[in-house]
Amino acid sequence: MAQQEFKIPEKQWAQVFDKHNGPIELKQIPVPKPGPDQILINIKYTGVCHTDLHAWKGDWPLDVKLPLVGGHEGAGVVVAVGELVKDIKVGDHAGIKWLNSSCGQCDFCMAVDEPLCQKAVLSGYTQDGTFQQYALANAGHAARIPKELPLDAMAPILCGGITVYKALKESHARPGDSVVITGAGGGLGTLALQYAKAMGFRTIAVDAGDEKAQLCTEKLGAEVFVDFTKDDVIAKIKEHTGGLGAHAVILLAVSEKPFQQATEYCRSRGSVVCVGLPPGAKISASVFNTVVRMLTIKGSYVGNRLDTQEAIDFFARGLISAPYKVAKLSDLPKVFEMMEKGEIAGRYVLDTTV
Amino acid sequence: MAQQEFKIPEKQWAQVFDKHNGPIELKQIPVPKPGPDQILINIKYTGVCHTDLHAWKGDWPLDVKLPLVGGHEGAGVVVAVGELVKDIKVGDHAGIKWLNSSCGQCDFCMAVDEPLCQKAVLSGYTQDGTFQQYALANAGHAARIPKELPLDAMAPILCGGITVYKALKESHARPGDSVVITGAGGGLGTLALQYAKAMGFRTIAVDAGDEKAQLCTEKLGAEVFVDFTKDDVIAKIKEHTGGLGAHAVILLAVSEKPFQQATEYCRSRGSVVCVGLPPGAKISASVFNTVVRMLTIKGSYVGNRLDTQEAIDFFARGLISAPYKVAKLSDLPKVFEMMEKGEIAGRYVLDTTV
Amino acid sequence: MAQQEFKIPEKQWAQVFDKHNGPIELKQIPVPKPGPDQILINIKYTGVCHTDLHAWKGDWPLDVKLPLVGGHEGAGVVVAVGELVKDIKVGDHAGIKWLNSSCGQCDFCMAVDEPLCQKAVLSGYTQDGTFQQYALANAGHAARIPKELPLDAMAPILCGGITVYKALKESHARPGDSVVITGAGGGLGTLALQYAKAMGFRTIAVDAGDEKAQLCTEKLGAEVFVDFTKDDVIAKIKEHTGGLGAHAVILLAVSEKPFQQATEYCRSRGSVVCVGLPPGAKISASVFNTVVRMLTIKGSYVGNRLDTQEAIDFFARGLISAPYKVAKLSDLPKVFEMMEKGEIAGRYVLDTTV
Amino acid sequence: MAQQEFKIPEKQWAQVFDKHNGPIELKQIPVPKPGPDQILINIKYTGVCHTDLHAWKGDWPLDVKLPLVGGHEGAGVVVAVGELVKDIKVGDHAGIKWLNSSCGQCDFCMAVDEPLCQKAVLSGYTQDGTFQQYALANAGHAARIPKELPLDAMAPILCGGITVYKALKESHARPGDSVVITGAGGGLGTLALQYAKAMGFRTIAVDAGDEKAQLCTEKLGAEVFVDFTKDDVIAKIKEHTGGLGAHAVILLAVSEKPFQQATEYCRSRGSVVCVGLPPGAKISASVFNTVVRMLTIKGSYVGNRLDTQEAIDFFARGLISAPYKVAKLSDLPKVFEMMEKGEIAGRYVLDTTV
Repeated sequence: MAQQEFKIPEKQWAQVFDKHNGPIELKQIPVPKPGPDQILINIKYTGVCHTDLHAWKGDWPLDVKLPLVGGHEGAGVVVAVGELVKDIKVGDHAGIKWLNSSCGQCDFCMAVDEPLCQKAVLSGYTQDGTFQQYALANAGHAARIPKELPLDAMAPILCGGITVYKALKESHARPGDSVVITGAGGGLGTLALQYAKAMGFRTIAVDAGDEKAQLCTEKLGAEVFVDFTKDDVIAKIKEHTGGLGAHAVILLAVSEKPFQQATEYCRSRGSVVCVGLPPGAKISASVFNTVVRMLTIKGSYVGNRLDTQEAIDFFARGLISAPYKVAKLSDLPKVFEMMEKGEIAGRYVLDTTV
Repeated sequence: MAQQEFKIPEKQWAQVFDKHNGPIELKQIPVPKPGPDQILINIKYTGVCHTDLHAWKGDWPLDVKLPLVGGHEGAGVVVAVGELVKDIKVGDHAGIKWLNSSCGQCDFCMAVDEPLCQKAVLSGYTQDGTFQQYALANAGHAARIPKELPLDAMAPILCGGITVYKALKESHARPGDSVVITGAGGGLGTLALQYAKAMGFRTIAVDAGDEKAQLCTEKLGAEVFVDFTKDDVIAKIKEHTGGLGAHAVILLAVSEKPFQQATEYCRSRGSVVCVGLPPGAKISASVFNTVVRMLTIKGSYVGNRLDTQEAIDFFARGLISAPYKVAKLSDLPKVFEMMEKGEIAGRYVLDTTV
Repeated sequence: MAQQEFKIPEKQWAQVFDKHNGPIELKQIPVPKPGPDQILINIKYTGVCHTDLHAWKGDWPLDVKLPLVGGHEGAGVVVAVGELVKDIKVGDHAGIKWLNSSCGQCDFCMAVDEPLCQKAVLSGYTQDGTFQQYALANAGHAARIPKELPLDAMAPILCGGITVYKALKESHARPGDSVVITGAGGGLGTLALQYAKAMGFRTIAVDAGDEKAQLCTEKLGAEVFVDFTKDDVIAKIKEHTGGLGAHAVILLAVSEKPFQQATEYCRSRGSVVCVGLPPGAKISASVFNTVVRMLTIKGSYVGNRLDTQEAIDFFARGLISAPYKVAKLSDLPKVFEMMEKGEIAGRYVLDTTV
Repeated sequence: MAQQEFKIPEKQWAQVFDKHNGPIELKQIPVPKPGPDQILINIKYTGVCHTDLHAWKGDWPLDVKLPLVGGHEGAGVVVAVGELVKDIKVGDHAGIKWLNSSCGQCDFCMAVDEPLCQKAVLSGYTQDGTFQQYALANAGHAARIPKELPLDAMAPILCGGITVYKALKESHARPGDSVVITGAGGGLGTLALQYAKAMGFRTIAVDAGDEKAQLCTEKLGAEVFVDFTKDDVIAKIKEHTGGLGAHAVILLAVSEKPFQQATEYCRSRGSVVCVGLPPGAKISASVFNTVVRMLTIKGSYVGNRLDTQEAIDFFARGLISAPYKVAKLSDLPKVFEMMEKGEIAGRYVLDTTV
């Protein structure tokens, strides 16, 4: 069969901003060309993540390329490949994730901790991302997406899915262990509950409100729901875990209070895994408690290439279903606005056709 | 050969206090009798540790038995064994360590994390310890001491040695990795440097003063000494580790500043292991840094029975030499006084003959 | 509430044999009394395992106590406890498993590898077992059985359940990995498929016949069934695993051919775990293949105390259902006969009431 | 500073053979040009390994490129780099090892098990190797060699050093554990003893003859030497390890007898690691013994990129010294001849100047 060919336009639509907190404009920009180790993806759908908002605001201690096309969870069709690329061909489906490329040679890259590479290139942050119709990905890092998977549902997996899956792996929980998910009813939380269940963990959901309680226990497999606005969080988790506390805690939104609570309801020898990144937040814990109970407090960032593939595998097996709404690429500013107001339940995915 | 027999007196000398910060009296008290799973040890030498001072002052959030015979690192000769004890016999050498016994059945005991047992009995803290001539040990937990080892030099290994060895294991450093020891010139620090070297780690010593610098690099195998009173600690450690920072940090004395520094000079994916227990101290770290660098912050308490045996093994192979001075049991109050003033270099070991 | 009391008879019924392959007699023998660290269990139900047959025949290279009351998977009610036993009381439910006691002090016991203890006492093998109404268990090793669990269904978990659960842990498979279960339709196999699924593994069942195919895929969660009498085993497993082979193989019945096949369809870096013990069988594999594909071949014996508790936990959560038939203790010789002829599907459990 | 430049000739000298067991001719062939992700190394010294002999004879079940320039442990100076190569520059020192390149994208590459990549390119086997003056290396896989290290001594580390270091890592021995090295006095063995000691392991050397005994115990740090021509190997190793056997065994030359012995003197729960590749050899072990003693038998192939860097680090720290003799590239056929006769002690390194 002849290899599929795609007509690649000269110009494309993209959402661009020139300075932090400045206007985000939908405009026509050139379509980039792939280098020898890159591929060009015609993005069909791109998720919108809190990180994109941070990139626009510039409130993280990490420099952003300007002007910038944001976005780092995009899924689409490969339309061109560089000369060194052997295992992806035009017509394949592929995804762009936060980590666009890494040096491949440093101690971290050689230990498959490429997210820690000091020369890592970040999609929609230090390189133009997925809020455009044609985006570049390093072939080594692009996510391979089986053709039978829907590209809109895929998008949120490429960031949130991989991130929570990695955090669950980093917790070193084993099948049968109890894992607390804080913020269980949110975008990352609903994904985390499903991955945790698929991994054989027993989940305890922490969040607020009856609607989320129902969602978590009836649809997402949580064994118990703890409402932090009503329940004594520490007491209820301890009660559910035979008095010892949970084997692991995944802190999807870290603020001072939940963090300190976590070290109280985490079992001795257990792990508290931080994932969320509220600007300026601090970890704070008693040394005495940490030592005599041999607690582990750790950070989990994003997954590596293998974590990516595994996270997609779980999704492909039908075990993960992330709630999302579809809007248009032109709706991005509106979505940012809702996000800032905390009005979004689940994830927004943008269709790039204009 | 007939089994050796020992004449056990009715009364013995012990250092006892009735209330926190109250007088410590050398007086005669009854010699206890072993239960079916216990042994009675004629303590020849007992170390004096900061923990003994905390027990006397009562400034840790953990209740102390009163009146109390303190002390938890004692080595001596077994003079009686309970009926269930099969592998220790009268005449053997044995040691008492911090963990005197544990329930044997809880999740932690079953996972050889017996120091985390909620029913753990602590020598010189919740049960009378080694500041007496005859002390009880649970047979399962008593340290087995080969007869060729000197009992005075052995004593500090039973607490400090095991503790630093455990912390080094918990760091998950591998042979060839770089490990920072803070407080490297102190009692625990000098032990830690030697164990680290014996385990194939490359050590970086952090402490103050030229005397300690010389001790650490010329006698104890440190590759480099960082003087926190003169050097830029973070810069010097990074420079020595190719810019990436150390694979692990063992924090023997945790106070706010060294802790925060540790997360700066610890390599991404590395571990900061807290060991010391200053009353009221807090761990505090940036969430952002912890997450994007995937740092692990953890507490290490004391070793289990296998750690104990391994720590003694390294000592028996001649790889560990802990500096100590010998005094008499009657000198205990004086030793506490010096300890409070910070006047002790190395360890004091008390001879229990009166 | 007053502690429950039980009237313990002087005599009881037991199945006893005096020499290998000799007659097995149902007769009255004295009820034993627990030592200080033992409990006496009124066995309600006991499973019958192939190992019991080996004990009777004496065809393993491991000496058997004679005369012997066999049996090593019994569940019942605690009727007496030794003076040192603190966490089990009369009236509790408890189980006897293969490992009745161990020395508690050797390197293996200290590393929770107590099944490897050289002084291990084996139920129904080196100590009288569960083919009697009242049997002794070391309190440390007796299985704790929640009262809500049925004692007849519990019995096979105490041997087969623990054994396959341990083997799955030893395989180091991670959630999402593919695991081949050979002999998937047999007694151990059906348990293994269910545990594997509960642990998040993807299972491939190898056995023979349409009935077993249906059982494995429709009831026990296998993703695919490979009929070794019809299919090209290696080709079919490779095809189902993207050409690379399975991450782990659990060999429940090792004979020469399946073993050699296993190293062919096991993925590079994967593990082949041997569990079954056919007398005289050999492992045989190509050195070249083992080295360049970095294969691991290992043996898994029985679980330790924590494995036991975890295996019971999975059962208690309703995730494991082992098919069994109930007979009377007096039926034991008949059950052995059927077992020898290979006529038993699932497990026989004997009711000890006579 | 201006980047160094090298004049690269059109032609170079190389040792080439056209068919297995055919003549090996020193002749002039073209100097190859690096692709975008390759570097061209002016080989200064190349080791000669048994594998090179197997490549020439074609007696391994793995196809060889023909005609072939063999050799896979070469060290030299980088004289040209491809356009994508960023972290190596002309004038740097670099090494070629067995694994010349891998696909970078398969499950194994993504898990840093690139030696298992099914598309791996092997130096001096499926691609021309180091028996020439100018050889190509994939930039990602080329070993980075610090300039202060001697290139002749470096050569044997690039194959033998990495291989034994990897095997020691794969054994999962921990500092303080006992490790048996079989063939301890040979080329790989002397390296293995030194790496093992540097990693904190206690070594037991198995080989034959007083000269090797002296070398192993007096120069290479072995605690004990077992002469397989005189001693009862199993008894002596058990005696030296407290009766339990060694924690790990590294089988540098696997033949039937040493392999079977290894499973006897390996401690329960220990690992027997196969490294050597005698054509047609079989692993054979008792299933019963493997299961009830929970033994692990595994193969270790070659190191990945991180293992390579670590192995070089140990060498750079002065902890490893491999005995070698220097000959000329033109001497290759003679070296092969001596190798076949088993006349080489240590390693031959060839100087490529003609």
